[in-house]
Amino acid sequence: MIADEVLDRAPYRALVRPPGARYIEALDQRALPHAVVRVKIADVDAAALAIRRMWVRGAPLIGAVGAYGLAMALDHDASDAALDRAHAALDSTRPTAVNLRWALDRVSAAVRPLPPQARADAAWREADAIVVEDVAINRALGEHGLTLLRQIAQRKPGPVNVMTHCNAGALATCAWGTATAPVFLAHAAGLAVHVWVSETRPRLQGANLTAWEMAQRGVPYTLCADGASAALMSRGDVDIVLVGADRVARNGDVCNKVGTYEKALAARDNNLPFYVALPSPTIDWRIASGSDIPIEARDSSEVLEVTGRDDYGQTQKVGIAPHGARAVNFAFDVTPARLITGLVTERGVTRPSREWIEAMFPEQAKVP
Amino acid sequence: MIADEVLDRAPYRALVRPPGARYIEALDQRALPHAVVRVKIADVDAAALAIRRMWVRGAPLIGAVGAYGLAMALDHDASDAALDRAHAALDSTRPTAVNLRWALDRVSAAVRPLPPQARADAAWREADAIVVEDVAINRALGEHGLTLLRQIAQRKPGPVNVMTHCNAGALATCAWGTATAPVFLAHAAGLAVHVWVSETRPRLQGANLTAWEMAQRGVPYTLCADGASAALMSRGDVDIVLVGADRVARNGDVCNKVGTYEKALAARDNNLPFYVALPSPTIDWRIASGSDIPIEARDSSEVLEVTGRDDYGQTQKVGIAPHGARAVNFAFDVTPARLITGLVTERGVTRPSREWIEAMFPEQAKVP
Repeated sequence: MIADEVLDRAPYRALVRPPGARYIEALDQRALPHAVVRVKIADVDAAALAIRRMWVRGAPLIGAVGAYGLAMALDHDASDAALDRAHAALDSTRPTAVNLRWALDRVSAAVRPLPPQARADAAWREADAIVVEDVAINRALGEHGLTLLRQIAQRKPGPVNVMTHCNAGALATCAWGTATAPVFLAHAAGLAVHVWVSETRPRLQGANLTAWEMAQRGVPYTLCADGASAALMSRGDVDIVLVGADRVARNGDVCNKVGTYEKALAARDNNLPFYVALPSPTIDWRIASGSDIPIEARDSSEVLEVTGRDDYGQTQKVGIAPHGARAVNFAFDVTPARLITGLVTERGVTRPSREWIEAMFPEQAKVP
Repeated sequence: MIADEVLDRAPYRALVRPPGARYIEALDQRALPHAVVRVKIADVDAAALAIRRMWVRGAPLIGAVGAYGLAMALDHDASDAALDRAHAALDSTRPTAVNLRWALDRVSAAVRPLPPQARADAAWREADAIVVEDVAINRALGEHGLTLLRQIAQRKPGPVNVMTHCNAGALATCAWGTATAPVFLAHAAGLAVHVWVSETRPRLQGANLTAWEMAQRGVPYTLCADGASAALMSRGDVDIVLVGADRVARNGDVCNKVGTYEKALAARDNNLPFYVALPSPTIDWRIASGSDIPIEARDSSEVLEVTGRDDYGQTQKVGIAPHGARAVNFAFDVTPARLITGLVTERGVTRPSREWIEAMFPEQAKVP
């Protein structure tokens, strides 16, 4: 049960497990913003497919879906071999976000010591716990981020102009989002905010998802082309950049949606604060720096084509390049810690350096 | 007549005046890369519309089309009042590129001292001269840029990886292009080049036009999302960034397609050379710095929608944002001179500073 004081009362949830169900229901994010489609995910293959094909996406959310996928696998076969097989199948769906591996490891560790007949129930409980914790974590980091927004509001008139990238919203998590949590809390508290949403080519998670979330919650926002981010900053139209993360190295380097690094460079050149909001499961304690993070290369068709809605309300895919064009499609980039003002975590805001991160999470300081 | 030694033998031309004709034929660039459509522009209203609606675009090209538009107006009415009216109508079509104003002023200055009955022929001759000079200028700056590419080729194996943005190609000029001229000359000379083409949202001039030009000429290229530029640089996949310009201030600040500034920041952070190729008519001698350049704000529909070709070969426009979404669409940004390695002009490569630019164009040094 999600405690009342951290409950996100938005009219949508990326992921729901109906009480007692042995399946989950997720928003099919490929259909947004044009249609709200819910899909039922009832076995491990469907869970893996949903992650791989990006019906669900966002580092914390795919962690939760992966955890439930493991529980679904154990409902059918709770042997060690089945557990290992399901773990491997789910872990191989997407390489960059570390939350997936973290969640799979956590569920595996919780159930492996148990006798097979107790494993499935324990896995469902552990996955539920991951969801409950994700909501609480995002709410907590949202409060810390809200403090940053209040500080900006105190020294300037008008709304606080937050620029974000991709979707680090409630759709990327179990509720609240990471980068969006401070924005949603500010809006609920009556603090005037306005969000610059960069469309985030190639998959347009900004235009499709973040814009939709803002509209659902009534938060003022304006869409822009990715390449316009620096121009908007140089015009004085941005107060703070706030993005999410798919994996953070021990030294504070941040891997996030491709285009994040360019925003960090633009913020630095315009003396603007650049913050990354992340739940601690996004920190990969085994990785010393960003150069060790595997970067997912996705299909070039995502660059060569754009999906949207035509005048008749039909979803259409249109080609934008000459026949036979080649394209490259690295889905993520690494923003060096030196360009980051601070990391907003559930325990507070910290500097992006090994020393400061370990000081905030001392229980992890001993891991190699 | 375009001299043989500067002739661009590519199988397409953005603009042609058939011998003796009192009209021009242009490629309708809205149809590319899916279809090659030529439009006849036979009066000043059509010329203004073609520029405003971007059937033709690119700073040098709209200068040439504007010059011909003035000649067409004078064919009908060669009075001072008609000349002023046509000048104003053409000049108001697009605000940022200075070549348009430069070409209109040049034709006006050439014909105004003449008796009305001599003005139209003189205007056609002056417009022809602008075209001939543009081809020669681009060829000359291409040779200077080629020297830069040869220097890179000498110190590394494999192709020279050039990243460009938007379309500063033959489609943006009367031939050769500006940023593309060195690439086309290198390819013709047998120097291995590979071009990173950033798609250039919102209007996709990279994916639609630059990619098409590379394919037409057999130059290897790869398309990427705009936000992937910095990531590609940090991977070591880029040797040099080479872009065009819509207007250059006396101090070397460069106004170009939105997203250029981000590429310059990324190049600086990765210690890569960032060059701007420009014909001298792109320098606005009346403007001291980039902050004085008017930035065109275009319709938000360009951000909210994407045009491409569907599976049935039909051109379709698809919406990518929620119903009622707002978007901002500044078409250009300003890259500060401090981020620019050099300016490639028809007289050679110079540093982006007032002193060096004036040393290269001493005849302009006295203008206030």
